[in-house]
Amino acid sequence: MAEVFGAIAAILTTASFLPQAFLVLRTRNTEGLSLIMYAMFTTGVSCWLVYGLMIGSLPITLANAVTVLLATLILIVKVRNTLGTRPGTGEPPV
Amino acid sequence: MAEVFGAIAAILTTASFLPQAFLVLRTRNTEGLSLIMYAMFTTGVSCWLVYGLMIGSLPITLANAVTVLLATLILIVKVRNTLGTRPGTGEPPV
Repeated sequence: MAEVFGAIAAILTTASFLPQAFLVLRTRNTEGLSLIMYAMFTTGVSCWLVYGLMIGSLPITLANAVTVLLATLILIVKVRNTLGTRPGTGEPPV
Repeated sequence: MAEVFGAIAAILTTASFLPQAFLVLRTRNTEGLSLIMYAMFTTGVSCWLVYGLMIGSLPITLANAVTVLLATLILIVKVRNTLGTRPGTGEPPV
């Protein structure tokens, strides 16, 4: 029974970053996203990936490989938007 | 060594939702956040919490209890903003 909750948890938390990644790639709007969150989260999930590889856990490795990919995509767009924004205007550079 | 990566991973992925929750509570801007993501993620983390309780793992239970709290806060503001927006205008109701 615990394994059922664990499996649902792993699938939902991993797959949840798909709609967020699609939204960011479609709209390029990352204003409401925290840069610090995505920097910390991507680093953290990379550590989960290393942990999964080290203990030889296929579910942990696979789930976090997918999440690293999606979180990195979101982080790249966020960093680009942050660097490409003219200071003080909130507008993209001409 | 694997435990070090696991501990860093747990701390970073849990704590990463703090700056996002602060940003959302401060600005109330959730335009760039995916409603589907936060609905799936909050449900998924709740399942991790149940899983942690069922297998009697204190680290899994504690980490996911904190994340459920932060993700639920973000989800509440997102749902309020989504319901409170006049259709087609992207503006809040008068």
